[in-house]
Amino acid sequence: MIQEIKGGVCAVDGVKAFGVKESKYGLAVIVAKGNAAGVYTKNKVVAAPVIVTKEKLETNGGYLEAVIANSGNANAFTGDDGLKDANDMANTLAECLDVDPKYIAVASTGVIGRKLHIDKIKDQIGTVFPNLDSSEKANAEAMKAIMTTDLVPKGFAVEAQTAKGNFRVGGIAKGSGMIEPNMGTMLSFVYTDAEISASLLQSVLAEVTDRTFNRIVVDGDTSTNDMCLVTATGKSGVNVNLNDEAVYSEFLNAFETVMKELAKMIAKDGEGATKLIECTVTGAYSEDDAVSAAKSIVRSPLVKTAIFGNDPNWGRIVAAAGYSGADFDQSAISLDISDGSNQVFLVKAGKITENDSGTLEKLKAIMSAETIFISMDLGTGYSETATAWGCDLTYDYVKINADYTT
Amino acid sequence: MIQEIKGGVCAVDGVKAFGVKESKYGLAVIVAKGNAAGVYTKNKVVAAPVIVTKEKLETNGGYLEAVIANSGNANAFTGDDGLKDANDMANTLAECLDVDPKYIAVASTGVIGRKLHIDKIKDQIGTVFPNLDSSEKANAEAMKAIMTTDLVPKGFAVEAQTAKGNFRVGGIAKGSGMIEPNMGTMLSFVYTDAEISASLLQSVLAEVTDRTFNRIVVDGDTSTNDMCLVTATGKSGVNVNLNDEAVYSEFLNAFETVMKELAKMIAKDGEGATKLIECTVTGAYSEDDAVSAAKSIVRSPLVKTAIFGNDPNWGRIVAAAGYSGADFDQSAISLDISDGSNQVFLVKAGKITENDSGTLEKLKAIMSAETIFISMDLGTGYSETATAWGCDLTYDYVKINADYTT
Repeated sequence: MIQEIKGGVCAVDGVKAFGVKESKYGLAVIVAKGNAAGVYTKNKVVAAPVIVTKEKLETNGGYLEAVIANSGNANAFTGDDGLKDANDMANTLAECLDVDPKYIAVASTGVIGRKLHIDKIKDQIGTVFPNLDSSEKANAEAMKAIMTTDLVPKGFAVEAQTAKGNFRVGGIAKGSGMIEPNMGTMLSFVYTDAEISASLLQSVLAEVTDRTFNRIVVDGDTSTNDMCLVTATGKSGVNVNLNDEAVYSEFLNAFETVMKELAKMIAKDGEGATKLIECTVTGAYSEDDAVSAAKSIVRSPLVKTAIFGNDPNWGRIVAAAGYSGADFDQSAISLDISDGSNQVFLVKAGKITENDSGTLEKLKAIMSAETIFISMDLGTGYSETATAWGCDLTYDYVKINADYTT
Repeated sequence: MIQEIKGGVCAVDGVKAFGVKESKYGLAVIVAKGNAAGVYTKNKVVAAPVIVTKEKLETNGGYLEAVIANSGNANAFTGDDGLKDANDMANTLAECLDVDPKYIAVASTGVIGRKLHIDKIKDQIGTVFPNLDSSEKANAEAMKAIMTTDLVPKGFAVEAQTAKGNFRVGGIAKGSGMIEPNMGTMLSFVYTDAEISASLLQSVLAEVTDRTFNRIVVDGDTSTNDMCLVTATGKSGVNVNLNDEAVYSEFLNAFETVMKELAKMIAKDGEGATKLIECTVTGAYSEDDAVSAAKSIVRSPLVKTAIFGNDPNWGRIVAAAGYSGADFDQSAISLDISDGSNQVFLVKAGKITENDSGTLEKLKAIMSAETIFISMDLGTGYSETATAWGCDLTYDYVKINADYTT
């Protein structure tokens, strides 16, 4: 059994955090010792902090003592200077904490192709370090520090009760634009006080990332800086291993809950977004097909603008599934849309079931909700399923991105 | 040698056309007897007219006498009724022309998932039929009749001079939204008075479509109705065959010129667009890689919004290439941007060459042009290349698509 608790990463025993934000330049530090795992962008243009952190976790035995993350500059496409700056950030924090820099992960988010403002970051480390704390406020400052065009700070934590005792999982994230993660999201840091080996943690992280962060789309642009790191402090004393199925499944559940809530927060707070779109595809031949169709729908600019404008142009949803690459026959699919309480059935086994003006008026009303649930059954005779999350495409997305660097 | 001429499809000997438009419902008819070929959407949700036309051309020996196309309703996802309506359109025209309906192609564009207004279409056939003509005005009426949210009618024609005589190629097209063709564009009809077999015409059409219509992106949504049909009337007496290399290459050149100009017109008149983006990728390992990178760049909402806002945020171009799937090393790529006369070199072999505020100001000025040329060299040591075309993403794209059906 799991339940939501407050405090984000600081809800987890053994975690301290703090952050500072000066205009668009923020810096967060999270300190927590433990086995760790990471997933990273698959973009061929990989930011310096991603290269540095990935290499550390691959060679240090899967262990972290702290994470340092800045916002306002992605330190991406910055060549050797960028690698030096990323290491410099980590080394400066390592010195403050008096730990080996190989246990310090580094992350960045912001503009691509600009040299990092390393002196400002060093100053900010000086401000953040003495304030590191495990309070709810400390978590809030860290969340705020990594925001760029995010409007809402993003954190979520749960406590899980098991026969072996209680443990917690808490995480923070930032998202907003350039979001179609292909590994982690822009940045996410998740902590647990469960005891778990680095290798098992890595496998859980990869599995859960595929079902959560890798299923959100804001604009379809995969960032150069995506990174999700998880550290297990072990402070709860609850050991997670494959021989204890009950505890393992509880851990998977708690971990996935936190990751999914953070992912949904990112989708909902996509740049300029006014609505969250949750699209579930059932009846697919394979899970990959279900994912392709669901992501194609939440990625479609035409679906996203229709949802922004409450335009009941549901044909666009069908078209987006059609070019997704998923295997299906148009004469077998079904489609319904709901706002969580009201529902309208549009297509049943390939036939348009309701298309009169009354139905379209009802659909318009449903589409004006804050969360729109799209359900499509591909009718293949197989039962694979997947859910993806996205947001509407609005004037504000254009506004924010037509004038980002200047 | 080829040169541009006026008259669109009606510039071609043996072609008559006309069209009518009543609010959002238009109807165009083009009459021309000859060997014919077609390419169609690869969307799994295939509109009824696409199914009907494809089957006719696959079974009638590759021959057409006329094309009938309506706008305002896509006749897509309309099941058996839709097939009946598509055939009804063709049959009605066949009766007027007194020809076998198997030689009449049918095409539609507009809203998906609504029953066709077949009675109105029959009325419109009655209006169009007596006016069929080979004048420039007749071509103009046909171009206008197939427009939906297009602002500009799209037609282009050339005359080619060869040792064997002159021939012409002319075409019309409609585009605007739901544009990332994967076979033809929304609708395009191309005519030539060269003599050419249906099978060679099909192979030329497939080859040239891949380099023209299949390389434009407005929003990344592949339509259910994409169709490009070509008919060769043979009236010029110039025979195109593989044994006469000079004439064949002249034909390929003329045909590709018309297709490319129509494709660029569609990209430039993308919904809400204010600018044409032409992106050329060189130094790729394969042509497929070059296409992937170039299309990824012109598809990226972040690149498109930056170009709309003259925001010199070129890092987004590099990031879009990075997630395209094209193989390259970020330390080897080069990037420059130009408006056709002024150029700014941003990256050379992985190094940022100019990034001071003067360069960014110069880039801003370049980005305010009507056509922006992006050149990226992937630096793989191979020399494959491709060009793709797109447009900026603006407030008006959101406006048009947030309120399309209502």
